[in-house]
Order: sequence, then C-alpha cells, then structure tokens
Amino acid sequence: MTPPEQTSLDQQFAFLKEIDQLKSVVRKSPLLNQSRRENSAEHSWHLAMYALVLQDSAPAGVDINRVIKMLLLHDIVEIDAGDHPIHAHVDMAAIAAAEQAAAERIFALLPTPQGESLKALWQEFEAAQSADARFAKALDRLQPMVHNLETNGGTWNEFNVGFERINERYLPIIQSGAEGLGQYLLARLKRFFNKSDA
Amino acid sequence: MTPPEQTSLDQQFAFLKEIDQLKSVVRKSPLLNQSRRENSAEHSWHLAMYALVLQDSAPAGVDINRVIKMLLLHDIVEIDAGDHPIHAHVDMAAIAAAEQAAAERIFALLPTPQGESLKALWQEFEAAQSADARFAKALDRLQPMVHNLETNGGTWNEFNVGFERINERYLPIIQSGAEGLGQYLLARLKRFFNKSDA
Repeated sequence: MTPPEQTSLDQQFAFLKEIDQLKSVVRKSPLLNQSRRENSAEHSWHLAMYALVLQDSAPAGVDINRVIKMLLLHDIVEIDAGDHPIHAHVDMAAIAAAEQAAAERIFALLPTPQGESLKALWQEFEAAQSADARFAKALDRLQPMVHNLETNGGTWNEFNVGFERINERYLPIIQSGAEGLGQYLLARLKRFFNKSDA
Repeated sequence: MTPPEQTSLDQQFAFLKEIDQLKSVVRKSPLLNQSRRENSAEHSWHLAMYALVLQDSAPAGVDINRVIKMLLLHDIVEIDAGDHPIHAHVDMAAIAAAEQAAAERIFALLPTPQGESLKALWQEFEAAQSADARFAKALDRLQPMVHNLETNGGTWNEFNVGFERINERYLPIIQSGAEGLGQYLLARLKRFFNKSDA
C-alpha cells in the first residue's frame, strides 16, 4: 500500500508538472526590451510582484496574501483555453466555458480539498466581486497598459486602440479595484496621448 | 511640487519596470517540454506555486506567505549578477559580492522603507537560517531536481552529476528545510538511478 502522504505528494507534483506548460502560453504583450512576447507564467510572476510592491495602493481590508495567490494561479486555465487579448473580438461566453472546463480538469489533479480550495480562489478572481479580486483584476489590467506606455504604444497600435476606448472600457476596472492607481494611470495615459489637461 | 504619493508610485513603477529584465535571464534548466531553457522570472513563478501547493510539507511555524514573497524576489539580483548553476565551478565569494551589490542597486529604486524591507527579506533567504528561508531554499533546490527527473536527467547529464553527489551535496539542503519532501525526493532519485533499496 502506498501511504496517503505519498499519494498526496504524487498528486501535488503531478499538478506542479502540469502547470509548467503555462511557460509556453504566449501573450500579445512584449517584454519591455521588445525581444519577444511575454508568456503567461512570467506575466503571473510580474503581477504577483506588482501586488507585493503596490500593496499600499490597495483599498483598506484587502488581504494582499490572498491577492498574490490569486494572481499566481489566475492564468493557469490558459494551458487548455489559451490567452485571449482583451482588445481582440472574441466569443466571451465560449472562452468562459473553456476556462471553466480547464479549471475543473487542472485543479482536480490536486488532492480534493486543496484542489477545490484553489479552484474557488480562481473563481473568486474571475467573478471580480470581492475587494481582493477587484484589486487583483486591476493589476492584471494595469500591467499590460504600463507595458504599452513603456513600448511606445505596444499592443494598442496592433489593435488600433486609442485613448477614448481605454478610458471608457479598461480604466474603470482599474479605478474600481484601486482608485489611486487608476488616477495615476490616467495621468500617464493623458501625457502619452497628448491630452490637453495632462 | 509633485505630491509624495506620486513620487512613491513613480519609484515603485521604476522598480517594476526594472525587474522585467528577469524574464531575459536564462537558466540551465529546460522547460519540461524541452522546447527551450527556463528563465528566472517564470522559474520564480513556478517556485511560488511550489510553496503554495506544498505548504503542508513545511515544518510547523513556517509562514507560507513570507516564503512566497521570498521566492518571488529571490532571483532579482540575477538581473545584474547572472544565473550560476550549482553544478558549475564558480567563485562563490565573487558571486555573493555581485549579488549583494545588485540588491543594493535594485531595491534602492523603491521608496526607502519598502526597499529596505524587501532587501532584508532577500538577505534572510540568502542567509538560509530562519525556518521560512530554509523551506524556501529547499524548494529552490527541489524544483530543478524534479525537472531533471522528468527530463531523463536534464542538467545532471550536462554537468556529469550522479546519485552520490546529489545525495551528499544537494539533498541535505532539502532535508534541512522540508524533511518529508527530502524523503520523497530521495525515493524518486533512487528509482531514477536504479539504487537497489528503492
């Protein structure tokens, strides 16, 4: 008989092996040195660092340790469902279904209570209702915008996205999760797009 | 006058921009699909996931949130000092000095109290004395070994490393930080190297 501790470890290492594939999911956003596009694993690391560094910009009551964990695992479903840039025209319902199926498959590799717990954390992130999830979502939207600002427009050029679309569609998610970061970003966006009141 | 909050944010975003370079520091270890070598940013993400998933294997009293933060930032000094595989013959004192200088430069990009606090966390990791740091170090040693086991020997072949050297030099660090994980790994190593009592 295999002892239960070893079975748990076998399951945990199977999960840790599976998620190595996130390093091969390539996003649209370039690295800041523009040598290549970013992958979802290093993006997740960068976002966790955003949370660690910008924690004082989170609303009162946000648990930064939960936010970091959400951001570490928020893209794991892309192993099955792929990355879908927010500027692209895509079937959101189909993507949500594919991501849900991916979460069911991948988190089930873990011992049951642990897999259910991490899946619940991912679902909380996706639902974007709790303060922790809204802050995590704000950072997930913020980082690619900062990269675009630092790379002379980046994916905004590729998808023909201008100030008005950013201001109406993407900025509210950041302002809703982290008001101060939203204001800071808005000022940088205005300078970048040469808006007169910047 | 620039308000102090904006100065802090400017410094924090300068740091977050600087550490994007960790995505271009390439390690010896391959991805599990062997398509390319791993970089230090995605390696740091994977280690943070190791900590999250394997937290029940940590000794009592270990604060997994501190461990995750340590692992997120443990390799940032490689932006200046490079990655040095443990199997290679290198001048350890020279590397330690280069890493210390890198830490001084990079963490100083942040507002002072925050930069000092994160540098102290990095130094705690490097010193490997606290239970948190020993568990983090154990995971940092464990992950490349698991990758070698999963890729038919990986960098062990490249550096001509056998069971005895692993058992004497690398395994004790894992056993010291996480005894159960050390035992689990030893059993896998014995099977891999066809040791008779496996």
